[in-house]
Amino acid sequence: MNKFIEISSRDNKLVKFVHSLEKKSNRWDKKSFVIEGEKLLIEAIKTNQKIEFIMLSEKVFSSDRFNEIIETVKDNVNFYILEHKLFQTISNLENSQGILAVVSFNVKELKDISIRNIIFYSDGIQDPGNLGTIIRSIDAFGLGGIIIGENTVDPYNPKVVRATMGSIFRVPIFLNRNGINGLSYLQEKGFRILSTVPKEGIHINEFDFKTGDCIVIGNEGNGVSEEIKLLASDHLMINMKGNAESLNASIAAAIIMYEISTKV
Amino acid sequence: MNKFIEISSRDNKLVKFVHSLEKKSNRWDKKSFVIEGEKLLIEAIKTNQKIEFIMLSEKVFSSDRFNEIIETVKDNVNFYILEHKLFQTISNLENSQGILAVVSFNVKELKDISIRNIIFYSDGIQDPGNLGTIIRSIDAFGLGGIIIGENTVDPYNPKVVRATMGSIFRVPIFLNRNGINGLSYLQEKGFRILSTVPKEGIHINEFDFKTGDCIVIGNEGNGVSEEIKLLASDHLMINMKGNAESLNASIAAAIIMYEISTKV
Repeated sequence: MNKFIEISSRDNKLVKFVHSLEKKSNRWDKKSFVIEGEKLLIEAIKTNQKIEFIMLSEKVFSSDRFNEIIETVKDNVNFYILEHKLFQTISNLENSQGILAVVSFNVKELKDISIRNIIFYSDGIQDPGNLGTIIRSIDAFGLGGIIIGENTVDPYNPKVVRATMGSIFRVPIFLNRNGINGLSYLQEKGFRILSTVPKEGIHINEFDFKTGDCIVIGNEGNGVSEEIKLLASDHLMINMKGNAESLNASIAAAIIMYEISTKV
Repeated sequence: MNKFIEISSRDNKLVKFVHSLEKKSNRWDKKSFVIEGEKLLIEAIKTNQKIEFIMLSEKVFSSDRFNEIIETVKDNVNFYILEHKLFQTISNLENSQGILAVVSFNVKELKDISIRNIIFYSDGIQDPGNLGTIIRSIDAFGLGGIIIGENTVDPYNPKVVRATMGSIFRVPIFLNRNGINGLSYLQEKGFRILSTVPKEGIHINEFDFKTGDCIVIGNEGNGVSEEIKLLASDHLMINMKGNAESLNASIAAAIIMYEISTKV
């Protein structure tokens, strides 16, 4: 049975716990993150995520929508009902729907990546919207996942999660704990490391992508780091006729995914 | 000669004017918008925008960077120097560089669009980052511009401007004041109206793009409106093998631009 428990104090332990998950170090300590809104909750349920608990504003609890929500949630998940004002203190959204959940995450390691996939590598993507959109596009094109490299925004940051539109639950997230050595390790296992560059590279439409490719997308301002460019077997670019110096990082990544989808 | 004028009061008319440009109606009334940061200012100068005036934090005024900045600015532009705290009240950025400028804009009308171009149409794009990124991609691929349809975020919104990374100064912005009638007008002039759809459309890699095409990108949540879909001669889609329901609007637009760039 699901339990319904009222919370009325800011000093409640679970309220404090949800607050604590605003910090990356706490998220990784507890391997837990916050999702907000009905759509993400439904995606989490559909994809069998481990939902630790759900918090609702009393406004949702007393609405018709509430019955629809509990019908989709498995037994043994506790619902905590908060006064609307208290709920708003834990929400990250300006227009909150009055529903959030704490969900466990399980990042994978480099050794878990199958060479039968094509994967992407974030070399310092900083903008949450960019990383989230890349994860969403990987899901759309059915590719093998993303490796989180150094200096990358946390994939469980609320803004990243929102931008994935639920793809965070379907796209495998791999963590590179060893910088350039992690990429060398993949290379030794037979992966092909491909760097993206703004110019002086092979045009992606002239390149033969194949499984085992690991495509590196660089930081918004600085691109792919020099040491990764040196390690990479090939440098790839998108041919552009216009005036802008470069494409947005998530745009460049998605165009490469599209190009792959027309070939592999 | 450039003039350097100190401002120390919040009640100064120009300070109030900059504040007033936070509102869309005031921007359109004065046909002026605010740009922030050195990079955007340099782009504005390079592309010969009409710069009405420049405001600086005293911190910038007393730094070495300042000489570099004035060297790039033409004569007869006034520089207003503000105390750092006062400057921060007019900045929209958390980490302001202490420099902003007010720039005039000139939107074009539908009658100004050349049929020798390929253009994009925003049917209700609401997210500033998405519209800005689309404008940046149009610039990168050297396409003909964007038409701002109904319910679209203002292209001179500070967040849009920032996401364009300077492309706002190079990409022609056309305004559709007449909804569906504006699109009918283009159709009568020989333009081909192409709607994007998430499914049940022609795959873009099987479609022959040509000059005179007007490609409609829809709202983030609802896609292209029904009346535009009915008017359109063709419905286009991006073939996806994966699980995500749809691509981000700016991603879909850029993939179409890339596909066009490989053909036209």
